[in-house]
Amino acid sequence: MINLVIVGSIGLDDIKTPFGKISSTLGGSAVYSALSASFFEKPGVVGIVGRDMPQEELKALKNIDLSGISKGEKTFRWEGKYEYDMNEAKTLKTELNCLSNFNPSLPNSYKNAKYLLLANIDPDSQIKALNQLKNEPFVILDSMNFWIKNKKEKLVSAIKKSDLVLLNDGEARQLFNTPNLIKAGRKLLELGPQYAVIKKGEHGALLFSYDSFFSAPGYPLEELKDPTGAGDSFAGGLIGYLAKHNKTDEKTIRQGIIFGSAIASFCAEALSTKALLKIKISDIKERYEVFQKIREF
Amino acid sequence: MINLVIVGSIGLDDIKTPFGKISSTLGGSAVYSALSASFFEKPGVVGIVGRDMPQEELKALKNIDLSGISKGEKTFRWEGKYEYDMNEAKTLKTELNCLSNFNPSLPNSYKNAKYLLLANIDPDSQIKALNQLKNEPFVILDSMNFWIKNKKEKLVSAIKKSDLVLLNDGEARQLFNTPNLIKAGRKLLELGPQYAVIKKGEHGALLFSYDSFFSAPGYPLEELKDPTGAGDSFAGGLIGYLAKHNKTDEKTIRQGIIFGSAIASFCAEALSTKALLKIKISDIKERYEVFQKIREF
Repeated sequence: MINLVIVGSIGLDDIKTPFGKISSTLGGSAVYSALSASFFEKPGVVGIVGRDMPQEELKALKNIDLSGISKGEKTFRWEGKYEYDMNEAKTLKTELNCLSNFNPSLPNSYKNAKYLLLANIDPDSQIKALNQLKNEPFVILDSMNFWIKNKKEKLVSAIKKSDLVLLNDGEARQLFNTPNLIKAGRKLLELGPQYAVIKKGEHGALLFSYDSFFSAPGYPLEELKDPTGAGDSFAGGLIGYLAKHNKTDEKTIRQGIIFGSAIASFCAEALSTKALLKIKISDIKERYEVFQKIREF
Repeated sequence: MINLVIVGSIGLDDIKTPFGKISSTLGGSAVYSALSASFFEKPGVVGIVGRDMPQEELKALKNIDLSGISKGEKTFRWEGKYEYDMNEAKTLKTELNCLSNFNPSLPNSYKNAKYLLLANIDPDSQIKALNQLKNEPFVILDSMNFWIKNKKEKLVSAIKKSDLVLLNDGEARQLFNTPNLIKAGRKLLELGPQYAVIKKGEHGALLFSYDSFFSAPGYPLEELKDPTGAGDSFAGGLIGYLAKHNKTDEKTIRQGIIFGSAIASFCAEALSTKALLKIKISDIKERYEVFQKIREF
């Protein structure tokens, strides 16, 4: 039985940064999230890949259940580029391929899961997956600017069904047309979720709940090599930590956010998934301790 | 005897924001810094004003020694505007007036001060003021993009003579031509100061020392009305706190940064100096306690 389900994209990425490039490498929101969550709890991944996906790529995913992955014709492909300031990916090409008519179908062994991460993917797919879970899981939803622009209404319905919504700073501002992140965070809560998290990259993350606020510092990274998947790793680390401890109170969420931030910081230090495939839980715990020291006063 | 000296500009400001405007109001880096420092220790201000400065404006400065202010012909004037996102002031007009040939002269009662804030002003004036202090004070230096662009060499000499250097994120990136704030912070230390602080506005502030790093959260402000002087208030609060406790160890500096952040957050909630003239030390302490809660995990 799988207790943590992650729904999202699985793709082959071409990434260019000022520090290197990589072609046709395993990527996608479900991949980064699952790799990150797997440090705490074995996740089951729901997604779709084509026949062109090299078998050895998927085999790299240890401690991850792959039985929720369906087969299509051609794998989703994304080509992106980062400029010198590394702030935001510039998408050069997106080929949805088999993702364009993806109809998520959960194995029976996934349907009683208590934790569900709806990683960035079409909000229609997010809702279809969510409806297959039987026991009202704790739902974390992530998204991106593309869906805010093109499927805002559907995305808002999906947010309403989630317990914790994650957006980055630009997306939160875009969704509510405000420059103020504190306002945007409060407005996310008004949609229904118990918690809202705004990811701010190098500046850390903000957690909003009805009567509380938490500001997580950013990890002091001197060598940022490739931010691809850092936000997905953050989400995966957070939900993996919650699932492991089987708690969703605010204290555990704050800790999960710091673990998610620690993993995301490793993710950004190497191209694509390279760092996530290399680090150990002891490395992550070491960074968690650094986080404790850098916010003491 | 004055134990805390603040050198900087004193001016009359015209400020426009999407939330209101104000004309010919008392401003300048020394004014905001001194108002903020005065919550902890009576500062002596070194600056220059013209005959056009209304006497009642300066009288509003309680618990601040004004005997270091010299008289010139016409007061420095600044006209600035903030757009909807409130990120950065757009300078519409600057009239240096009597500030253009300002030769700071410290009263004898200032010369044994143990704490010196070189608030934003021409680095030549900063160095001239510093050279008049007798007992190697603890020196905090602030500056701005204008001096980085136009007097970089002189500014760097001034930084080398300071113990703690303060810049905002944009200025730190500009000075070292790097997008990475952690790198910029380390490079500031290489110039000589024992501490470097990078102010990040809503994202808080970073403190660098040789073997340590501190990340201060931003205060969750929903109503940002006018950021003018917030950075100066931060600097004044920090040095005021150090002077009051007569300590410059890292722990005290971390606490001073939080007090400076608390005062800066009030400053940004109202036009020009309005909030600084209204709040009490109990208001500031209340926000300090909020800062403690929002970073717990």
